[in-house]
Amino acid sequence: MASELASGAVTSIGRVPDHTRLPDESVGGSVPILNRFKIVSLLREGEQLTSGCSDTETKIKIATALSDFGIEYIELTSPAASEQSRKDCEAICKLGLQSKILTRVRSSMEEAKLACDTGVAGVEVVVSTSTEEFSNGKDMADIKKTALEVIAYIKSRGVEAIFSTEEGFRDLVDLRDLYRTVDQAGVTRVRVADTLGCATPRQVHDLVSTLRGSVSCEIETHFHNDNMCAIANAHAALEAGATHIDTSVLGIGQRNGITALGAFLARMIVEDRDYVTSTYKLPQLQALEELVAEHAQISVPFNNPVTGFSAFSHKAGIHSKAVLKSPSTYEIIDPADFGVTRNVHFASRLTGWNAIKGRAEQLGLAMTDDQIKELTQKIKTMADTRQLSVDDADSIIRSYHLELQA
Amino acid sequence: MASELASGAVTSIGRVPDHTRLPDESVGGSVPILNRFKIVSLLREGEQLTSGCSDTETKIKIATALSDFGIEYIELTSPAASEQSRKDCEAICKLGLQSKILTRVRSSMEEAKLACDTGVAGVEVVVSTSTEEFSNGKDMADIKKTALEVIAYIKSRGVEAIFSTEEGFRDLVDLRDLYRTVDQAGVTRVRVADTLGCATPRQVHDLVSTLRGSVSCEIETHFHNDNMCAIANAHAALEAGATHIDTSVLGIGQRNGITALGAFLARMIVEDRDYVTSTYKLPQLQALEELVAEHAQISVPFNNPVTGFSAFSHKAGIHSKAVLKSPSTYEIIDPADFGVTRNVHFASRLTGWNAIKGRAEQLGLAMTDDQIKELTQKIKTMADTRQLSVDDADSIIRSYHLELQA
Repeated sequence: MASELASGAVTSIGRVPDHTRLPDESVGGSVPILNRFKIVSLLREGEQLTSGCSDTETKIKIATALSDFGIEYIELTSPAASEQSRKDCEAICKLGLQSKILTRVRSSMEEAKLACDTGVAGVEVVVSTSTEEFSNGKDMADIKKTALEVIAYIKSRGVEAIFSTEEGFRDLVDLRDLYRTVDQAGVTRVRVADTLGCATPRQVHDLVSTLRGSVSCEIETHFHNDNMCAIANAHAALEAGATHIDTSVLGIGQRNGITALGAFLARMIVEDRDYVTSTYKLPQLQALEELVAEHAQISVPFNNPVTGFSAFSHKAGIHSKAVLKSPSTYEIIDPADFGVTRNVHFASRLTGWNAIKGRAEQLGLAMTDDQIKELTQKIKTMADTRQLSVDDADSIIRSYHLELQA
Repeated sequence: MASELASGAVTSIGRVPDHTRLPDESVGGSVPILNRFKIVSLLREGEQLTSGCSDTETKIKIATALSDFGIEYIELTSPAASEQSRKDCEAICKLGLQSKILTRVRSSMEEAKLACDTGVAGVEVVVSTSTEEFSNGKDMADIKKTALEVIAYIKSRGVEAIFSTEEGFRDLVDLRDLYRTVDQAGVTRVRVADTLGCATPRQVHDLVSTLRGSVSCEIETHFHNDNMCAIANAHAALEAGATHIDTSVLGIGQRNGITALGAFLARMIVEDRDYVTSTYKLPQLQALEELVAEHAQISVPFNNPVTGFSAFSHKAGIHSKAVLKSPSTYEIIDPADFGVTRNVHFASRLTGWNAIKGRAEQLGLAMTDDQIKELTQKIKTMADTRQLSVDDADSIIRSYHLELQA
């Protein structure tokens, strides 16, 4: 840890990652592929939001925007959910998008056929394995037999088969055996889900590491955000050897959602800026989020990573000073990578003279440091008596500068 | 991991924690105190939000609500920031709240005196130690000498001294040496901050574990949320031996904020429901968040844990069925603990017959399962053609039931 901190620490805990080294062997020894992940965007989770029941036209608009953005996979609601869902699958497959289109079905031949007929590139087969039998009373041998038949059928149609479990495992032995079996049967990918949103990053790392040691296929992970760990969990999964991360725009999904696309990219750009900026059209993120927010009838949260109005705002004097001198002191992400701008807020009692100096320079007004310091004191005193707008502060700066000329 | 999963797994990754066992020795061996943490609520971070410049009256209202909620510490803006900030400190100290009032100063005798004079219970001394010298050009020996004088002065005034570093460390050796020195000098607490919001839970666990092995005093941690890991990081810090977590209501703070109070409690109630429900007045959370949101001129995010409108919503058929049968299948938190209610959404094409059955029962309409299934098909077909409100769905259920009677 000492040498890690020495290599690039800029804060007492965090550091800019150094991927020239392999990870610490004590945490698994696997080589992380933090710069080779693929993103699955779940349009189907969008429908889960109470307000987010989207019509075909909206789905097409969003799918097209996701594809343009560079998302590798788009997963749609099961064609077995309703006749309209089936038609939507067909319509979106026919668009010929760059993104591969996926859908999901229960482990049934009938549903698998329905899915393959829509023209999707991949079908996820979801089985219920919980011995608590909330949703499915079959035992493990039956589950395995049916799943293998369905997988063989999907493969025979020239479609990628993805194997997934909806609920729980009472015993990791069951998990490994089942996943090994479908891996040997030639699935493209297995998928594990934290459906409850209760897993911690360490639990995720342990489980995905174990799975990574058991199967040779790709590993997709799905994290609900009930305990607000969905981003940290996605990162931990990649460190442990996962290859695909399920996301949705703004994290929209059942309850308080899943790994949010923008937040996930904000996390990953810190790991490998070159990979993230060259793979995804980041300046389109804001428009993509606004498109989805509009149709889901929600607002982009004030604190949304990157695009929330406060994401790149700076207010306190000590922070503003450092940000103006060297943005990397207080920003791990360059807002320009996402086509958004930094906002150093200076019209408050917490302002510092460096922020005022920066603003005066933006306004083209030259003053000495001593003059700026006196001006700053004036602004802080004013801000104590009432809330100042940027226009107010600019007026004070301009009038002070004018007095100096007189 | 196999035995861990076996002990209480309910999802393929997550599990309900079992604190009857000590943690896995491979991750540090320290005994986590996941049920003995203290919360520091940073009113000062509220001021950092561009729109959140609060007047004295508002600060008093929020501080009182935080104290009533059960928050152990409230930290205010430095009295050195402006004359009004100083007066606010005095005014809030005079309220005699249950919460201990803290403030923070730079490592200067003048500022420490100013802070102690306001009547606060504790003063945090923040030093800049970055060798990049963005904000402070002093070398480590000078930093240490001044800090020790300031700490001695604060203690002489009968006030708790908290030692903190604002920025970075180039080398963990510096960190340990400095923190050990102030620990021996008798500080109540040391504090480490991820000011950039770039740390991952594993990095946090490593650093806090190291610190835990170096000092005997309390350890406070502060996490910014730029990479959306602030909750996972707070949890990892507690697992590694931290004692105090900095939070703010709704996570309001510089850029996209810090560990949010509600989200943190949502994470911790899963660890130890008895401790969290007996220590904090959770049913007051929603009112507290609304109070702060109103004054900061923001909206509670749609996906905010616990209080966001989608937090306890369920829509998909398979989910709704399980939620109705046994809420713990898809909910790790009981909404009743926070005084909010569950919302199983059934008026959509994704609805399942169990959700419709549940709704019919709520409406007091008895039908056989076959009748409910036919009714469900009607509702799904209707939902395909247009978006149904709850009232619409209720009408369909009632009219179908009426037809049956005829």
